[in-house]
Amino acid sequence: MKLIENWFSERYSDNLQLSFRVMDQLMSVRTDYQRIDVFETYDFGKLLAIDGTVQLTEKDEFVYHEMITHPPFYCSREPPKSALVIGGGDGGVAGELLSLGLERIVNVEIDKQVVDVSRKYFPQLSSSFGNPRVKLLIEDGVKFMKESKEKFDLIVIDSTDPVGPAEGLFLEDFYSASKRILNSGGVLVTQSGSPFYQPKALQMAVSGLSAVFRNVSTYTAFIPTYPSGFWSFTMASDSSISPRHDIQIGSGKYFNAQVLQGSFMLPQFTLDLIKEAKRKST
Amino acid sequence: MKLIENWFSERYSDNLQLSFRVMDQLMSVRTDYQRIDVFETYDFGKLLAIDGTVQLTEKDEFVYHEMITHPPFYCSREPPKSALVIGGGDGGVAGELLSLGLERIVNVEIDKQVVDVSRKYFPQLSSSFGNPRVKLLIEDGVKFMKESKEKFDLIVIDSTDPVGPAEGLFLEDFYSASKRILNSGGVLVTQSGSPFYQPKALQMAVSGLSAVFRNVSTYTAFIPTYPSGFWSFTMASDSSISPRHDIQIGSGKYFNAQVLQGSFMLPQFTLDLIKEAKRKST
Repeated sequence: MKLIENWFSERYSDNLQLSFRVMDQLMSVRTDYQRIDVFETYDFGKLLAIDGTVQLTEKDEFVYHEMITHPPFYCSREPPKSALVIGGGDGGVAGELLSLGLERIVNVEIDKQVVDVSRKYFPQLSSSFGNPRVKLLIEDGVKFMKESKEKFDLIVIDSTDPVGPAEGLFLEDFYSASKRILNSGGVLVTQSGSPFYQPKALQMAVSGLSAVFRNVSTYTAFIPTYPSGFWSFTMASDSSISPRHDIQIGSGKYFNAQVLQGSFMLPQFTLDLIKEAKRKST
Repeated sequence: MKLIENWFSERYSDNLQLSFRVMDQLMSVRTDYQRIDVFETYDFGKLLAIDGTVQLTEKDEFVYHEMITHPPFYCSREPPKSALVIGGGDGGVAGELLSLGLERIVNVEIDKQVVDVSRKYFPQLSSSFGNPRVKLLIEDGVKFMKESKEKFDLIVIDSTDPVGPAEGLFLEDFYSASKRILNSGGVLVTQSGSPFYQPKALQMAVSGLSAVFRNVSTYTAFIPTYPSGFWSFTMASDSSISPRHDIQIGSGKYFNAQVLQGSFMLPQFTLDLIKEAKRKST
């Protein structure tokens, strides 16, 4: 008989938390950059947390990984052939990009232990790193961006939130460096937080990108295990950003042709945040 | 010095819960129908819970109340003049319908104590009941529906989830009775739960309505304090259901002309649930 229940709680603020009942904690490590935990939960399968924040669960990772890759793919003027992924050490983004047919993917993750943990506990995601089309580098993304001689059709910034090691990934400086290695017509996309709980993350991304790129466009998705369930992504390009109508739009478990249109149609309070951020950047 | 922290937790399942830190519990009562609690929370202002389930908070009630009223208003062939609200004892739905200019609103709530609690703790919502255009009846909605001689342009079913007193509000029988008192060209809308955690609520609504009405259409909104943050509403009519383009679409804090379009564009897993429910009903 088991008398003790174990729960993992993510605190959204001092006053709000989401708690997952767990069968077991599978590992916990403090790396040079952050703390990594993996839990076996009852409702969501395995759960990866970084610094106490849910990064992914087996049950709902498909939403985040589809939505950070498929919309920019289908909003590029030409289907992108090469991509740079900053972060994404679990391998989920690289996997989706492979499924979209990209020919070359360079994935720059700063923390080798995220990759190691994913290889052990999330092989369905990390298996993408075994594909010869994917080149994995353990390196600081900001440094890579400034020094890279290679250019890319698509840049995906799959970072943690703009506190801790990922803070620099939300700054204008970083976006300028990104633009330098983006091919003409290319698109950059970044996760930009919960408009409801983290309006500053969204506003940092929008104002930083607007200072550097001609076109900036935010879209959203519903992710049940992220704070508020409502998540934003922001795309930027010097070319126009709009869903293509001339090619077949594939469907995932979340993404489809409807979502490609509807995810850009934003609630008024989110539009207001974006408008304010764009005003500040000019 | 306060050493004890008080939290209100809504259990989404045996294995998942969202917890709000509370300054105080303002009241708690067990009525003939359900248990009602009101908390003063730190992050969301006052919170109303029924049977342990968050019904509304001061901070985010605007999403639910705008989204259960504005889309059906703007999808009706003619702007509706009269509405029947089943449930909605807090007064929030009636308030939005007043703001949309409806001339007559009959609000049928089964539990008088929901109204009393709202009058005391949520006067900004319940004040709608003081408007002469609103007629409040304390009565069983199912019984009212079967006996009413009055017909309406719009029917809003603002119920709790299909367990407990609201179960009958998700059944074909009830939808047939609703159709009888819906004016020609009129629209019915019901909240239909979280597609992620309560696929059965959505499927009950869709299959029950599809058996009775020619057109059935589901749309969604993001509601941070509801399970998964992703919520569905389902509209039904014998006339076509589509957003009007010939009149000015007003904006709220959540709703706007973009949302009116985008909220009908559904993730693939939600489309699949709906397709399955429609197949079952034929």
